[in-house]
Formats: sequence, structure tokens, C-alpha cells
Amino acid sequence: MKANRMEAFSDGVLAIIITIMVLEFKLPEGHDWYALIGLGPKILSYIFSFVYIGIYWNNHHHLLHMVRTVHGRLMWLNLLLLFWLSLIPFTTAWMGESHFAPTPTALYGIILLLSALSYRLLQLAIIKQHSGDSSFVVSMGKDWKVKLSPFLYLIAVLTAYVSPWISCFFFVLVAIIWFVPDKRIEHALRGQ
Amino acid sequence: MKANRMEAFSDGVLAIIITIMVLEFKLPEGHDWYALIGLGPKILSYIFSFVYIGIYWNNHHHLLHMVRTVHGRLMWLNLLLLFWLSLIPFTTAWMGESHFAPTPTALYGIILLLSALSYRLLQLAIIKQHSGDSSFVVSMGKDWKVKLSPFLYLIAVLTAYVSPWISCFFFVLVAIIWFVPDKRIEHALRGQ
Amino acid sequence: MKANRMEAFSDGVLAIIITIMVLEFKLPEGHDWYALIGLGPKILSYIFSFVYIGIYWNNHHHLLHMVRTVHGRLMWLNLLLLFWLSLIPFTTAWMGESHFAPTPTALYGIILLLSALSYRLLQLAIIKQHSGDSSFVVSMGKDWKVKLSPFLYLIAVLTAYVSPWISCFFFVLVAIIWFVPDKRIEHALRGQ
Amino acid sequence: MKANRMEAFSDGVLAIIITIMVLEFKLPEGHDWYALIGLGPKILSYIFSFVYIGIYWNNHHHLLHMVRTVHGRLMWLNLLLLFWLSLIPFTTAWMGESHFAPTPTALYGIILLLSALSYRLLQLAIIKQHSGDSSFVVSMGKDWKVKLSPFLYLIAVLTAYVSPWISCFFFVLVAIIWFVPDKRIEHALRGQ
Repeated sequence: MKANRMEAFSDGVLAIIITIMVLEFKLPEGHDWYALIGLGPKILSYIFSFVYIGIYWNNHHHLLHMVRTVHGRLMWLNLLLLFWLSLIPFTTAWMGESHFAPTPTALYGIILLLSALSYRLLQLAIIKQHSGDSSFVVSMGKDWKVKLSPFLYLIAVLTAYVSPWISCFFFVLVAIIWFVPDKRIEHALRGQ
Repeated sequence: MKANRMEAFSDGVLAIIITIMVLEFKLPEGHDWYALIGLGPKILSYIFSFVYIGIYWNNHHHLLHMVRTVHGRLMWLNLLLLFWLSLIPFTTAWMGESHFAPTPTALYGIILLLSALSYRLLQLAIIKQHSGDSSFVVSMGKDWKVKLSPFLYLIAVLTAYVSPWISCFFFVLVAIIWFVPDKRIEHALRGQ
Repeated sequence: MKANRMEAFSDGVLAIIITIMVLEFKLPEGHDWYALIGLGPKILSYIFSFVYIGIYWNNHHHLLHMVRTVHGRLMWLNLLLLFWLSLIPFTTAWMGESHFAPTPTALYGIILLLSALSYRLLQLAIIKQHSGDSSFVVSMGKDWKVKLSPFLYLIAVLTAYVSPWISCFFFVLVAIIWFVPDKRIEHALRGQ
Repeated sequence: MKANRMEAFSDGVLAIIITIMVLEFKLPEGHDWYALIGLGPKILSYIFSFVYIGIYWNNHHHLLHMVRTVHGRLMWLNLLLLFWLSLIPFTTAWMGESHFAPTPTALYGIILLLSALSYRLLQLAIIKQHSGDSSFVVSMGKDWKVKLSPFLYLIAVLTAYVSPWISCFFFVLVAIIWFVPDKRIEHALRGQ
């Protein structure tokens, strides 16, 4: 029951994050298509963040179904993840408004990196609850997506100072990797 | 269980969209009725969007009850729909602030058009889950409202450059068509 | 099941309305207590609206428990109520920012009046579903609070042009009348 | 069932409060790390509030599980708590924007103090529902955290005029005290 409530609270926060990002779109001065062009970078960064929050929502959902008991540590690891994700509307707006300038793009990557590391901590804490079930531990522990993403984010952060478009390439790459829901967890679930 | 969560998340996003639109009402300069007149077009576009989100909420609800299994593709089609709907507060504010200028009105129609097409994609994916149940497929597949709406939106987009009031006529027309909940789905449900 | 979802959606909207009102508090220029004084009227109007939304949340909850079947008409009456309530953050901010000037105060009362009338329409539609249960119809139909409130709001609207403080007196009066949850409905529930 | 809905509504409000605080981060003028430095105090106050709301969410959850019947008084005590918590985004933004000036820091402490006192009132009302269960009453009644926090907040308010950093020390101290979920309630639950 308690895991349900943690899930409901997280869902609420994710739903709000994904929706309030649109409040960062300032109304353009003019009333023609030309006036919208300036919004281009903001819309691009909005799409990135929308997809990322969508991915987190989906995977978080799979992950929380693995929870056996909710204790304080788990709740705080979940809040740590939500904390980094809650900063995404700000970094999205800054990256867009700066037209993907190096530092805002790097900061965007840093927040994604910290979100990914928090997700991994949460995953490890949940794996620990299944320490008796070796097949589960092995399949979850190997989760290459969760292990790989931080490195890709790190590269995106560093390459922002070479060209933000290289960073964007890595942002898109991570998104594609995560796009398909984690079959491993689903298989583990069915195997139970 | 999983469809419930998709429904709860979608409900959360729709509830936030419908409510944050009011944040786009800037406080008028004066403190008399005259000062409110300038808000007129914003209120009109707010009413349009409130009704549309209400219609989507109602029909989305009926549609999700048809879901048999939630897979990744379905989840992403649902997020695609929510993505277009999440842009409605922005297009609502721009259309209102511009006093229904042609381009903002056309953009408003385009976002509604893209929302309607995403809704159709989601519906088709759900129909596919019922491929064995021919009566269901036939009744849902024929859904003339879902098929007609995109054309009406397209006309609204194009006529925005003749007169935004013609566009508004089509916006109202679609709203009226959708106002009554889809009896077909309800009948199909009862028939099961 | 369907009434549950209508309740959940309404709860979501009410939770967002009650919380986003605080976004209308602009940060004061200075950093001392004196700088806060200017916020006084905004805080007062915030308190009013917080109490009203709280009252609506509580009574709406009781009312929806009476619903037997959710049909389109009921859903739209509920959305009509949410529409008027969704305008409260705007009227709250305007009344506060204007230091309770006559027109903003009157508009605040008008929105409360329209909310109250929508609530009554919703109640009448629900009473109709119980047309066979005469004791229920009689107890709900007599609901003097729902009948009296619109008149008190109307007086508040009109007296705003004499003195907004008279309006405030009536706002407080309605709040006090509603403060206690409607025992009638609770009794009717227990009597079933 | 009713307690569930009070919980769901409170969760919704808390999820919104914790998420909209980020809207108070204005985009910095520049696009380099230096431009972010000015955001430092805002981020620090954001972290404080995020942790506090997280603590309230967790403990509120434990507390509401103790509720036997939801009556009007309980609902209003809960709304009183939500009222003070709803002001946290404002006080967080003001404290951050003022770079922890004495008065905004004191106001931040006052709102936390009033939240803590409301929490205590809610707790006392719930204890009263268990008046027959002396072990429960004793364990909850003694809850030293709830009793101590208001004093620490009061000290934080007063010391804001000596140095806001002393206040911050007390804010951190209360957070640490509360960080671990209340074992007493958990034990009492298990003992039932």
C-alpha cells in the first residue's frame, strides 16, 4: 500500500513538472509565423525534457513495482530523484532561452546526470530488497542502460563547450536507448 | 492495473493544463469594468480550451477503458497526445492576447489538429488490441467524430487567414459535435 | 467507478487552484516587515479563497458520494462548476492587488455566485437520480445553505459599490454558514 | 475511505507546492556559470523547502493512517496545515531573493512554526480518536519531535536578527531531527 502512495506522489510531481514547463514559453511580441521562430530553441529543449520526463515516468513505474517494503531510506532516495527532476523546467528554459549556449547546455546535462545517478541509487536500494532472489539481482544489476546513461550525459556535458549540437546528439542518443521500456524488468516480473 | 496508472497520469496532466491556463490572465491595469474589456478575447479563448480539454478528458476516459494491455507503444502514443495538449495553454494565451489574429488562430487550430490526429493513432492502436472482436472493431473503426474533426480543424486553420471568426465557427462546431459523449463506445461497453 | 474518476479529476483541479493562487504573490521590493504591509490585502483575499475552495472541496466530496450513475450531463455540470472555480485565482489576485476596490470585489462575488449556482445545478441533477427516494429528495431539496448562498453573494456584489467591507462581511458570513459540513447529507447517508 | 481522499488531496497539494517552487527561479541574465552564482541563495532556500515538504509528506502519511473517522474538525485542521505549507513557495522565494536577509528569514521560520503548530493540533485531534487505547495515546502524546520543533523554529525566528546563518543552523537541525521517519508511530502501528 505504501509503495502505491510513493508512486502516486511521484506521478503527481512528474505530471506537474511535465506540464509547468510550458509556462516558460513567453508570448512572442508579434502575431505572425516569424515571431514564432525565436521560440524554436525553447520548443526543441521542451521536446527533449518532455521525452525525458516521459521516459522517467515509464521506467520509474516499472521500478517501483519491484519495491517490497517502503522504508525511510527508499523514500528519501526517491525524493532525491524527484529533486533533480524538479530542476528540469528551469534548466530547460535556460537552455532554450540561451539558444543552446555552452553553459546552459552543460547544466542541462549535469541535472540529467544527477537524475540518472539518483535513479541508479534507487535501483540499487530496491535490488538489495531482493538479495535472496539471485536471478532478479543479476538481471537488474546488469541493467546496462542505467549504467551507460551517466557516461553519455557526462560526455554531453563536456562536449557542450566544443559544440552544443554534439551534446544534443548525446541527449537524443540516451533518449533513443531508453525509448523502449526496459524489457529486463518486465521479463523478471513475468518470471516471478 | 497499468492502464489505471496511465489514466491517473493523464488525468493529472489534463487537470494541470486546464487549471494553469488561468495563470495567463495578466491582471488588468485599472480597477473597473472597462479594464476587463481587454481581457475579453483571452476569456473567449480560455472558454474554448476549457471545453476542449473537458471533451478530451471525457473521451480519453472512455477510450482508456478499452485498453487490454499497456505496452510501450501505447504509452508513447498517449504521451504524444499529452504533448500536443500541453501546448494548448500557450496557444490559448497567444490567440487571446493577439485578439484572434490570423496566425495565432491558425496555430491554435494546428495544435488541435495534431491533438486530434494523435488521439486517432491512440484509438487505432487500441482497436488493434481487439482485432478478434469484429463488432467492436467495426463500431470503433467507423467513429465518424474522430475522422471528421481533423478536417474541420484543417478548415479552421486555413480560414484563419480569411477571417478568424470563420475559424471560431469551426472550433465551436467541433466542440458541439464532441459535446455528447461517444455513445458508440458506451454501447460497445454494454454489449460486452 | 466512473464517479471516482470524476471525483479524482475534480480533486486534482481543486488542489491545483488552491495552490497556484500563491504564485500571484509578487515578491515585495524591500526586505523588511514594512514591505509586507502592501501584501496585506492580497493575503486577506488569499485566505478568503483558500477557505472557499476548502469548503467546496469538502461539500463536493459529500455531494459526489450521492451520484448513482455518471452521464454526460452530470460531467458537464461538474466541469461548469470547475470552470467558475478555476477563475478564482484570477479574481482573488485582482481583488487583492486593487486593495478591495469596488469592481474587483464585485467580480469576486459574481464568480462565487456563478460557482454557487453551478453547484446547485449539479445538486439538482443528482437529486433527480434519486427521484424514487422521497426522504432523500426532501432532505437534499430543502438544503437551505445552497439556496441562501447565491442571495448573500448577490448582496455582496451589489454592496461592493457602497463599501467593499460590507461585501467582505457577506463573504465571511457565507464562509461561516458553510464551515460546518452539511449534516443533512451525512444524516441522509447514515439513514440509507 | 474518506481518510484516503483527505490523503490524496493533501498529497496533491504537497506535490504541487514542492514543484511550483521552481517557477520562482528567474532565468539569469547571462549564459555562463557566473550568472548562476546569483541563484545560489535561491537554490539553498529551495533545498531547505524541498526537504521540509518531503518530511511533511512522509510524516503526514504516517499520521493520517492513524485516523479513525474523518469529521469536519479534522478536515479543517488538515486544511489549516496545508494553508501554512502553501505559503512556503512565497517565503522560500523571498528568503532566497533577499540573500537570507533577517526579516525574510524570520518570516520563513514563522511559517514553519505555524505549520508545526498546525501539525501538532492535527496530531492531538487524531490522538483524541484513540482515547481508549492508552498505549497509543502515551506513545503519540510524548512525540518529542513534534513538541521540540516549534521551539527550535522560534529560536530560528529570533536569531534571524542576530545572523540568518544561526537561523539556517536551526532549520538544518530540525530537518535532521525529522529526517528519520517517526519510529514511534510505526511501532504503534505494528503493535496494533
